[in-house]
Amino acid sequence: MKAQSFIPPQRTLMGPGPSDVSPRVLAALARPTIGHLDPEFVRMMDDMKGLLQYAFQTQNELTIPVSAPGSAGMETCFTNLVEPGDTVIVCINGVFGGRMKENVERLGGIAVVVEDEWGKVVDPDKVEAALRAHPEAKILAFVHAETSTGARSDAETLVRLAREYDCLSIVDAVTSLGGTPLKVDEWGIDAVYSGTQKCLSAPPGLSPVSFSERAIAAIKGRRAPVTSWFLDLNLVMGYWGSGAKRAYHHTAPVNNLYGLHESLVILAEEGLENSWERHRHHHLALRAGLEALGMEFVVAEDDRLPQLNAVSIPAGIDDQQVRTRLLQDFNLEIGAGLGALAGKVWRIGLMGHACKRDNVEFCLDTLNRVLADLGAGVEEGVAVAAAQDFYASAPQAALA
Amino acid sequence: MKAQSFIPPQRTLMGPGPSDVSPRVLAALARPTIGHLDPEFVRMMDDMKGLLQYAFQTQNELTIPVSAPGSAGMETCFTNLVEPGDTVIVCINGVFGGRMKENVERLGGIAVVVEDEWGKVVDPDKVEAALRAHPEAKILAFVHAETSTGARSDAETLVRLAREYDCLSIVDAVTSLGGTPLKVDEWGIDAVYSGTQKCLSAPPGLSPVSFSERAIAAIKGRRAPVTSWFLDLNLVMGYWGSGAKRAYHHTAPVNNLYGLHESLVILAEEGLENSWERHRHHHLALRAGLEALGMEFVVAEDDRLPQLNAVSIPAGIDDQQVRTRLLQDFNLEIGAGLGALAGKVWRIGLMGHACKRDNVEFCLDTLNRVLADLGAGVEEGVAVAAAQDFYASAPQAALA
Repeated sequence: MKAQSFIPPQRTLMGPGPSDVSPRVLAALARPTIGHLDPEFVRMMDDMKGLLQYAFQTQNELTIPVSAPGSAGMETCFTNLVEPGDTVIVCINGVFGGRMKENVERLGGIAVVVEDEWGKVVDPDKVEAALRAHPEAKILAFVHAETSTGARSDAETLVRLAREYDCLSIVDAVTSLGGTPLKVDEWGIDAVYSGTQKCLSAPPGLSPVSFSERAIAAIKGRRAPVTSWFLDLNLVMGYWGSGAKRAYHHTAPVNNLYGLHESLVILAEEGLENSWERHRHHHLALRAGLEALGMEFVVAEDDRLPQLNAVSIPAGIDDQQVRTRLLQDFNLEIGAGLGALAGKVWRIGLMGHACKRDNVEFCLDTLNRVLADLGAGVEEGVAVAAAQDFYASAPQAALA
Repeated sequence: MKAQSFIPPQRTLMGPGPSDVSPRVLAALARPTIGHLDPEFVRMMDDMKGLLQYAFQTQNELTIPVSAPGSAGMETCFTNLVEPGDTVIVCINGVFGGRMKENVERLGGIAVVVEDEWGKVVDPDKVEAALRAHPEAKILAFVHAETSTGARSDAETLVRLAREYDCLSIVDAVTSLGGTPLKVDEWGIDAVYSGTQKCLSAPPGLSPVSFSERAIAAIKGRRAPVTSWFLDLNLVMGYWGSGAKRAYHHTAPVNNLYGLHESLVILAEEGLENSWERHRHHHLALRAGLEALGMEFVVAEDDRLPQLNAVSIPAGIDDQQVRTRLLQDFNLEIGAGLGALAGKVWRIGLMGHACKRDNVEFCLDTLNRVLADLGAGVEEGVAVAAAQDFYASAPQAALA
């Protein structure tokens, strides 16, 4: 049979993820595969746990990467914690809250929805009202960083409310981990999941998760077995648990784990606080440029995620045409709107390795050109100039 | 925080998988990450489907890699096809049949077990008796290539029986795909799953699956939604389906897919029949050597998988001691026994890229040395000599 190797183009990834992967991480992926029960591999797993605990700011023993992408991380939380008949308060302010509701209902749970407009954060007052109205609720679930809009909800307050009303919390931190403050222990989060392809800048395919002792007690005390064999933490713990003896569960995605490990080493080298600050800094530069192009953010200033910038598409400009030009002529990927925002916004990511001055200026420059070319009525060079002004004036100008 | 890159040792992987990954595949993993909705990526996905259809010998449109390891491939088949109350005839002749039963029961199905001794193949007579006794059965599920014992069941006959009794078939081909004849369309298999880390010699983390039109009709006609959102093929089809428009479902594991793609290109270049023959050929050489060491196969000659050689550990020899010596002194991994066979057998893999004369001789030589050293009463050099005799006399001596 005829067949040809696939040689991907070299893009600059500034969409909602995957983000650009560092050459160090790509090199790690290509290291020789070893067995998933090899003592050297087990040593790497222990090391990985420590690195993930640092990234999540937790001492939770059960802090591991699920062997599948972020949506499997979400499912790991729900399938282990939700039993038929359980009431779960689900906050929806974008695509991913909706997916949480789907998870609850497929598992036979009862989803009580707290809805906020897309682009708005989850409203703690509405959440408290729902908690008060549903004393039977077992879990509060919400998205910390809504990748569909760029809104950052107040996870600390929401988790505190969950505790006050004796609920467990499930937090989607897919886009926040590594890019914006997330403090699992300090805030008291019970179950949290993330992805590798956002601010960690590893390839997609794994989902870091962490569970508190309270969550583990709930899982161990289930009335019925977890529907999913693959995601059943009672079994997964036997493989990722501490101690020399690891029980075979499934075959871990060895090389992908090398990549995640290296990306976590890079994060540890930089320091978590420095990474948060770097994301904030370049976001402000990008914002200056986008505003110079007349674009408006979907999310109010105080609630914005620095790593995910959802901005309105200028009137009269065709979404697809612009993104195709950026991709074909400049190898630049930015993200389309999802769901209710499709065709109305672009989502510009500044995540992990991709969050740097070169990319901010490259993105603003190319977007400026394409918009000018399509008659959007923008002056050439205004966007980059605005970003450069920001960099020149910002106290963190030293950040690369 | 202090952190160090992980540099794995260079092993020779001759256990039950992962198998050695070709340098071409490792290089593919390290290619630049692109977006999971990038037109170039979509082109690769289409190409991947064709390559998987070739490997599975099927025209099934729904032939894709699930974004998680083989046990998630198993779960994809069961979670989509089994509804609460459904009767599934499950054949158990090793570890993985047992896992199938777990899947059925967690999903609320009724598992009717057809049991055969570990090391034996699934007995078609018993299967037919079960099909006759359970006219309500919806599915027959069995393992084609039992990785825990090395037994190859007669999939063609079993699938024909399933059809005769109006059952769908679910076939575990984790260890058979690429290494031993597997003909999805000719045999009429309805749902089949495999892994990447066996005879395809890609890293673990993905699970190729294929579904017939009959299976798809059953999935579309379900009474209740699939419990798993992540594995729901109704949704996955929207992303992997044909046509230019791909609906975002989850973020595909981009770089891992590069690796699988390259391994399938290598398989296509060699030709499926040639790959099957290569596995058979080196298995016979390995067998000659193992028998010269006095070892006995768990499985009867006609039922053996060439790629997974389960042999008895010589009397008085300690399992763990030998495997540790092989790993530490020679960087050679062979597999331990699983379940009922733990401590009693070794499982020596000859899979994909690892299935070559150099490895056969290296494995026999090191095993011979270690056993001689531990006083197993074997002469030095007898194992390699026996393999060399085989290679000299075999008509396929030209195979590298």
